[in-house]
Amino acid sequence: MINKLGKNIPEQVDGLGKLQAFQGAFEKIKKGVMEEPTVPAPNRAKMPHQSKLVDTLKEAIEKCNPKDGLTISFHHHLRGGDEVLVPVMNLLANMGIKDITLASSSLTGAHDPVVPLIENGTITRIFSSGIRNELGKAISHGKLKHPVVIHSHGGRVRDVHTGRISVDIAVIATSAADCEGNATGSHGPSAFGSLGYAAIDARYAKNVIVVTDNLVDFPCLPPSITQNFVDHVVKVDSIGDAKKIATGTTRITKSPMDLHIAKVASDAIVNSGYFKNGISFQVGAGGASLAVARFIREEMKKKEIKGSYLLGGVTSYLVDMLEEGFFDALFDVQSFDAAVSRSLYENNNHVEISGGMYANPYNCGCLTNKLDVVVLGALEIDTDFNVNVITGSDGEIRGASGGHSDTAAGANLTVVVCPSFRGRIPIVKKQVNTIVTPGETVDILVTERGLCVNPAKPELEKNLKEAGLWVRDIKELEEEVRGICGEPKKIEYTDKIVGLVEYRDGSIIDVIYEVKNKE
Amino acid sequence: MINKLGKNIPEQVDGLGKLQAFQGAFEKIKKGVMEEPTVPAPNRAKMPHQSKLVDTLKEAIEKCNPKDGLTISFHHHLRGGDEVLVPVMNLLANMGIKDITLASSSLTGAHDPVVPLIENGTITRIFSSGIRNELGKAISHGKLKHPVVIHSHGGRVRDVHTGRISVDIAVIATSAADCEGNATGSHGPSAFGSLGYAAIDARYAKNVIVVTDNLVDFPCLPPSITQNFVDHVVKVDSIGDAKKIATGTTRITKSPMDLHIAKVASDAIVNSGYFKNGISFQVGAGGASLAVARFIREEMKKKEIKGSYLLGGVTSYLVDMLEEGFFDALFDVQSFDAAVSRSLYENNNHVEISGGMYANPYNCGCLTNKLDVVVLGALEIDTDFNVNVITGSDGEIRGASGGHSDTAAGANLTVVVCPSFRGRIPIVKKQVNTIVTPGETVDILVTERGLCVNPAKPELEKNLKEAGLWVRDIKELEEEVRGICGEPKKIEYTDKIVGLVEYRDGSIIDVIYEVKNKE
Repeated sequence: MINKLGKNIPEQVDGLGKLQAFQGAFEKIKKGVMEEPTVPAPNRAKMPHQSKLVDTLKEAIEKCNPKDGLTISFHHHLRGGDEVLVPVMNLLANMGIKDITLASSSLTGAHDPVVPLIENGTITRIFSSGIRNELGKAISHGKLKHPVVIHSHGGRVRDVHTGRISVDIAVIATSAADCEGNATGSHGPSAFGSLGYAAIDARYAKNVIVVTDNLVDFPCLPPSITQNFVDHVVKVDSIGDAKKIATGTTRITKSPMDLHIAKVASDAIVNSGYFKNGISFQVGAGGASLAVARFIREEMKKKEIKGSYLLGGVTSYLVDMLEEGFFDALFDVQSFDAAVSRSLYENNNHVEISGGMYANPYNCGCLTNKLDVVVLGALEIDTDFNVNVITGSDGEIRGASGGHSDTAAGANLTVVVCPSFRGRIPIVKKQVNTIVTPGETVDILVTERGLCVNPAKPELEKNLKEAGLWVRDIKELEEEVRGICGEPKKIEYTDKIVGLVEYRDGSIIDVIYEVKNKE
Repeated sequence: MINKLGKNIPEQVDGLGKLQAFQGAFEKIKKGVMEEPTVPAPNRAKMPHQSKLVDTLKEAIEKCNPKDGLTISFHHHLRGGDEVLVPVMNLLANMGIKDITLASSSLTGAHDPVVPLIENGTITRIFSSGIRNELGKAISHGKLKHPVVIHSHGGRVRDVHTGRISVDIAVIATSAADCEGNATGSHGPSAFGSLGYAAIDARYAKNVIVVTDNLVDFPCLPPSITQNFVDHVVKVDSIGDAKKIATGTTRITKSPMDLHIAKVASDAIVNSGYFKNGISFQVGAGGASLAVARFIREEMKKKEIKGSYLLGGVTSYLVDMLEEGFFDALFDVQSFDAAVSRSLYENNNHVEISGGMYANPYNCGCLTNKLDVVVLGALEIDTDFNVNVITGSDGEIRGASGGHSDTAAGANLTVVVCPSFRGRIPIVKKQVNTIVTPGETVDILVTERGLCVNPAKPELEKNLKEAGLWVRDIKELEEEVRGICGEPKKIEYTDKIVGLVEYRDGSIIDVIYEVKNKE
């Protein structure tokens, strides 16, 4: 099948069944295809006054009666500090379980140790919003039996709800939990904040294990995960390295170029028509994105603008903006540092939300679908504004879809900020290696060499030009970049598909091929 | 079929399908029947940035495309002050919709005006935990086409989850809501507290309408109902009479007999073996029940006992106990007065819970299944400790199952408090008119003429006797009551079934027959 972006999508993939081709960001909904049928949530009655506590992770797993071919899920709220996923996967491997589907909301550098498990057939399928480091390399070089499925945060909820991901065992790491499984990430020595991505697993998994390094007296409040969905509770010595959990990605860039890009992005937002009382806003954590928040904050102060809500992926900079009264509320699906966890615990206007409420396109209205403005990064962007955030310039998987396509599709104004090239490697290109976010959902690209407006938004382009911003044609910018960097070297791939990029509506927007080994 | 309590249960009922006979409080679970299959929760995708606001209730209903035979659901958190259910039902009647199933979490005196709608075939089925006043009379006299199904609060969640109640339109009254349908009952001029019973409707109804008299700026916090499940939002002039919403059932009885019963019940609890640090506790709002809380509070103070959680049906007396530090937490599925709403809004240890977390027996562990002690009332109790809380001494439906059977089954110690007779009408009887709560789940009956212990609990009986309490044989008590009141007059019924009492596991524990009209 050829999808709307001209990508050749196989009709079906061994081990993953039939595929749908991407037809456009909202084409399925516009055509009245509200969704494939959903699956029923399980219920498991228990006799009253039974203990859910088990002594070890191993015992908890054994009680779930693991079998070859099972699907196990995790959340990635512990980020690079996670010490739960790897031990659990090693336990399953030691039990001799094969052909496992690993469904984690994302995977980080902390998960490199599972590479041997994909090599020996313990893990044969992976669903994740992100893949990095050695794991990305191994998959890019064809080590995983079936192609990895890269979904967005919102798409993952739909995947579970429709049964595309049918979770047998959900392992939910928490920084505080009680004997019944009421649990939170908002306090405790390993506090990591919101448990938003785990909500759908708790509801739909056939077996739910809550893991904590901090068993507290009943009841654990707030109950981000509630006991009515939890089968087993296990106390471990550590769920992770607190220093790596609180990533500290909250420092604003000091790079003059990034600051310049951020300033231009802020100017574009201020002149876009969406900068007014009641604005809702999301920025990513990295690079220039967070710096945009700083400039926006200054403009809000100057112009006495009061916003409605911040959404994220929450850094402490956003918490400050909430506390200073620039916004009424902060919706938090994922928290990035200790200050955020504290705010989530203490501030009633800092609200933990599920992945579904954050970004699932197949419900009555997720928060990304109500956003005014989102600021996003990019690994690459093409002259049709299609964005790659998953594969590097060498073609290897090393990024994350995350909420990129969800927010881009939902926001009234989607701003991508990135340099036009990095170290002689072009970022603005004729064609990106892999499309994650379709250009039809991107409105503005801001680089150090001016900004480009999607031709579908002539009114916006007019506004920005009138405001004196350096608005350029994206094709012209691409040519200029090519003039500086030279024609980008073609990546050599085999014809084996190693990854499927699933758009938030469940269709396949792109495929990732195996990178040819260098001789 | 004859059920475990000797009641003759029809194999099936026209319009309600096949029935299961009650086998015992936990027999289904013990036999490994965890549950009938559940139904998938719907999802309904919408395009971003669409307005959900509609101008009138009528328009909201019309957008749900109502058809003959539909099921419509409501919650009863507005109690006797509700002004939403009747107007909606009249709207449907005026649209000419027939054969409606009315599924309200309970029905009160405020709902008498729907009697004409059951007489003219607009409403032909009713699911509810309670039926009172004219509506109870009308149903008892055979006016409703199909038998009313009386469920417990926990059983209702299971009914919706399994599709026994398949809600087409859920109308959720809220005291504050925003344009997306995020809504709460915890603040606003008509604040009524927890929205616990509406949670399952929001998740499973095919169409969800949020109704409010207090449309607030986005976002409405806390979002007890979240926007991802809401289709339409409508602002009305009034959702109800605030004075009748805050029922003020929080005053403790001044009746010397009730106070005496409460004191004995408290003594029994203190000597039961369950009165210790970490105790969890629920009391009803009415009669002697709340007075028990007063005595228990005094005993906790005296003996320096610190409890774990209070559960309910919450009156402000329980809020005081939370604030005074007698318990760590207060779980609130239903709030009874304005002070409770305020506490729910302000106190993070006062936690709103769904009906499922409260009492659904078919999940991994509801809070009623973790209770230590519950104190309950009774309209009648028999010598096997079976309790009637639904039909009056004239056989007419005038009560509520509520959480009675849920808490009785879950608690380690279930105490029923009631006088042995009222105005020459015996309450302790050989046989009750209608069994709602099976005697196997009741441990102690406390009356003004001593207390009786279920023979299944000899250890408990021993403890209470040793503590010097007046422990009596329930058969002896019944004889004594009969000696005072005389043989109770037999109620004359026809052989037409007008009600089914559904136990929390979905089986039928009793049937209610049509009361013969007096000539």
